[in-house]
Amino acid sequence: MNKFDLIRADFLNDFEKIQNLDGPSYLYEPIKYFVQSPGKRIRPVIVLFLSELFKNNKSDAMNGALGVELLHNFTLVHDDIMDEDDLRHNIMTIHKKWDNAHAVLSGDGLGALGPIFIAKINYNTLPILVRYHEVILEICEGQAYDMQFEKQDNVSVEKYLLMSQKKTGSLFEFCFEIPSYLSKEHIKYLELLKKIGRNVGIIFQIQDDVLEISSDDKNMGKGTDSDIRRNKKTILSCIASEDNKKKWNAFITSIENMNVVNKKKEFKKYLTENRIDIKAKEILDLQISNCNNLISELPDDIQEGVNELIDYILNRKN
Amino acid sequence: MNKFDLIRADFLNDFEKIQNLDGPSYLYEPIKYFVQSPGKRIRPVIVLFLSELFKNNKSDAMNGALGVELLHNFTLVHDDIMDEDDLRHNIMTIHKKWDNAHAVLSGDGLGALGPIFIAKINYNTLPILVRYHEVILEICEGQAYDMQFEKQDNVSVEKYLLMSQKKTGSLFEFCFEIPSYLSKEHIKYLELLKKIGRNVGIIFQIQDDVLEISSDDKNMGKGTDSDIRRNKKTILSCIASEDNKKKWNAFITSIENMNVVNKKKEFKKYLTENRIDIKAKEILDLQISNCNNLISELPDDIQEGVNELIDYILNRKN
Repeated sequence: MNKFDLIRADFLNDFEKIQNLDGPSYLYEPIKYFVQSPGKRIRPVIVLFLSELFKNNKSDAMNGALGVELLHNFTLVHDDIMDEDDLRHNIMTIHKKWDNAHAVLSGDGLGALGPIFIAKINYNTLPILVRYHEVILEICEGQAYDMQFEKQDNVSVEKYLLMSQKKTGSLFEFCFEIPSYLSKEHIKYLELLKKIGRNVGIIFQIQDDVLEISSDDKNMGKGTDSDIRRNKKTILSCIASEDNKKKWNAFITSIENMNVVNKKKEFKKYLTENRIDIKAKEILDLQISNCNNLISELPDDIQEGVNELIDYILNRKN
Repeated sequence: MNKFDLIRADFLNDFEKIQNLDGPSYLYEPIKYFVQSPGKRIRPVIVLFLSELFKNNKSDAMNGALGVELLHNFTLVHDDIMDEDDLRHNIMTIHKKWDNAHAVLSGDGLGALGPIFIAKINYNTLPILVRYHEVILEICEGQAYDMQFEKQDNVSVEKYLLMSQKKTGSLFEFCFEIPSYLSKEHIKYLELLKKIGRNVGIIFQIQDDVLEISSDDKNMGKGTDSDIRRNKKTILSCIASEDNKKKWNAFITSIENMNVVNKKKEFKKYLTENRIDIKAKEILDLQISNCNNLISELPDDIQEGVNELIDYILNRKN
């Protein structure tokens, strides 16, 4: 096991305590079911790894990690209702296994449990708790843009980046923020670490889009089907639209009535022929270079650790 | 205008600031629409009235009032999805006017906005914020029991009281709690005021059930239709079931295929013939007497005010 797997195992051990919660089965059965689905737990790993790097109190770090993972799970359950997705991490989503009512309520329950763990933190509790809600509101705004964009033919790259900052970047920012709040020594790098976290979130999102299309057809994830069906915007479709709106819109119209498999093939063909994938990689490289500049401003003794963490995050998908 | 109407007007004036929020319309349009629906605003009035009685800081009290009303609105939006209700305060519910996705997301947004106002409180902020989430979790548990009970033929009065304590009592408790936290002088009555608040919530709920059935047929609210359709439990159906399970179950089976109007008539007939309404009033009187005993433990100078407030709450419905 590498160190990240060890941290993850440590987290999962504590996360098991959700299984001991007692109360009405209508609420707690779906909650217990969902938190056991095989997510990568990247967000709590960030909180725990940085807390270890900053030599923070272990129990405070774990409560922070539980808080962010519960928040993340809350947004997943509700996003799955909104996107009408039947599968998540290859297991049935709550609204599919039960119904919408169970999914709405258990999502709310997960969202309420998160801050109950955050509140157990013994140091700088109030600012962390306050940020928890600002982050939820930002995620809601990101999800709102995501839903709005489904109904729009052309979305600018700028708008796409705003959406993914809010939807993905804000929670990654928060994961970098909690360990800073827990550290008397590193609180002075709070703003810098927040920027790095947000940046990593955006890179994580763009990379997901790019990898998806550059992988061979068989390895293109199930997620793509649902995204194509719902006309979800990715960095690639936004670049294509900005690059040549008329051509892109004509292409979209031309594949309208194809099945998902053919649509995927045509997408890939269009994106490579028009060098959209190259342009996406340029944007990705720019973001990575921004991120590296930010990291170079950190004190020497934590730079290596932060780089190691980011390598870990960006080589895996959640 | 009496003093409660003045407080309410004062609150609504501040509540208008929600209309100035800026961001994606997918999220904020339903939020702005829903908060303008004509609710009675009983919960913020409790916070503001008690804060005035305790001579608390006005701005802290208003932020507390905004927090509880937003929390209440969040639960209403999600409850309406779960109960598939098309109308709330005679206006279309969000999931009906838009769709489930809008209702899920804007409910989440309302739930995140609440604590953002609570966090603006300048005194005892942390314990109030921590309680906010305990209350949400309790409301979720109450709603879970409510949903579970729909599928059960016989629910005991004890279980019913547990459900309404959690679903309604917990937020009333919190409305009595915030002003206590804001007062250096009255914080010593925190536990007592919480008990009174919770008690008032249960009375509010039982009274709602009893009034509904004792009003003439024309005045029985629209809510009853939906409750009957969904087999929602009330204090009356729980008493009837405990009183004579066999007879009650036979009665329920006998009206199974009737339309809602006839069902209502038969319900009323059964409940009066079997003196279930009298028994409900006995339970109500017991709760009111408990509440009065609690109030008599408060210092003399606030007893009158608290009584006045409770009269106001229990003569109106939300």
